[in-house]
Amino acid sequence: MSLKESQDRVDEWVQQYKMGYWKPHEIFARLAEEVGEVGREINHQFGPKKKKAGEEEHNLGVEMADVIFTLCCLANSQGINLNESFDRVMEKCYGRDKDRFEKK
Amino acid sequence: MSLKESQDRVDEWVQQYKMGYWKPHEIFARLAEEVGEVGREINHQFGPKKKKAGEEEHNLGVEMADVIFTLCCLANSQGINLNESFDRVMEKCYGRDKDRFEKK
Amino acid sequence: MSLKESQDRVDEWVQQYKMGYWKPHEIFARLAEEVGEVGREINHQFGPKKKKAGEEEHNLGVEMADVIFTLCCLANSQGINLNESFDRVMEKCYGRDKDRFEKK
Amino acid sequence: MSLKESQDRVDEWVQQYKMGYWKPHEIFARLAEEVGEVGREINHQFGPKKKKAGEEEHNLGVEMADVIFTLCCLANSQGINLNESFDRVMEKCYGRDKDRFEKK
Repeated sequence: MSLKESQDRVDEWVQQYKMGYWKPHEIFARLAEEVGEVGREINHQFGPKKKKAGEEEHNLGVEMADVIFTLCCLANSQGINLNESFDRVMEKCYGRDKDRFEKK
Repeated sequence: MSLKESQDRVDEWVQQYKMGYWKPHEIFARLAEEVGEVGREINHQFGPKKKKAGEEEHNLGVEMADVIFTLCCLANSQGINLNESFDRVMEKCYGRDKDRFEKK
Repeated sequence: MSLKESQDRVDEWVQQYKMGYWKPHEIFARLAEEVGEVGREINHQFGPKKKKAGEEEHNLGVEMADVIFTLCCLANSQGINLNESFDRVMEKCYGRDKDRFEKK
Repeated sequence: MSLKESQDRVDEWVQQYKMGYWKPHEIFARLAEEVGEVGREINHQFGPKKKKAGEEEHNLGVEMADVIFTLCCLANSQGINLNESFDRVMEKCYGRDKDRFEKK
């Protein structure tokens, strides 16, 4: 499942509905909400609000995937191909940032 | 390029370095920083701080991919397969949330 | 009620409990969670998820005050006086940034 | 300096300019940006990106005050009195949440 394929799956779902994509600022507010839920899970699993590990470990992945879903909405609404963007990030890692940390 | 493949590319890069993955809370603080940079680009492109569209449109994708990169770090550090998590989110969309909005 | 007085009220409450202040990264994860809840309210009141205005207007203030409460925890845990920090921000506004926008 | 007085100082500064307050979603995107900068400082001071302590300790307070400045903008633009909202949060602490943690 490619990032672009993830985008296509989100688009297929969104296109069923009259509402369509929200405005960029609206999607961003939702993104921040989803990121906040990742933060809550981080505190539950690894911080002061410890709960049962099994249940939470599962949720952390889903909270993270909710963030990716929201990013797919933003990307789709703006015609951005996240595969290309991710390639550029990896190029940055192997280029500009390659000596930023000590190698093994 | 699958979400899991994105995770594998991030892992290949991280494994070069002695440092390894940061702790979950540290990765989360970085995640929030990257999300903040998405917010800044949203305001630049669609809000009160307008700049030239071409340059910014490009950056928005890269800022979003920086968020995905950071999520891949968190997922890898915790043994989470984001393909599976994303599948669960899509199942939630077609299940629980399928009548949440008006269909076309 | 001064920012420092807000900090003191938070401290008085926290000092009742054995737990004390969380670690900075843990407070930050909570901060992001509270900010996410502000984002959710923004979308409810001003975005695609409209609800009744009266009820929500109230909540937005409380969600914002939850963010301030969390900042007070972080400041207290680190011996930071937010009055002084806020003064420095206002000095920055009247100094470096004074000609950033067009005056009336 | 009261929360309301902080709001008044922000309002006095904003009222000099033609632009006025941004829309709620725009202020929120800025809020997320400022919160991200708090996250960056947390990682610098307490995480894997350690720097000199003296310089950073100062900045953390200012980054936090930038968040409060942004909240004051949002509150002012919506006619919200943060003193009242903060009172409600403290009431919640002493009411609903009073037995949430173990007392000393």
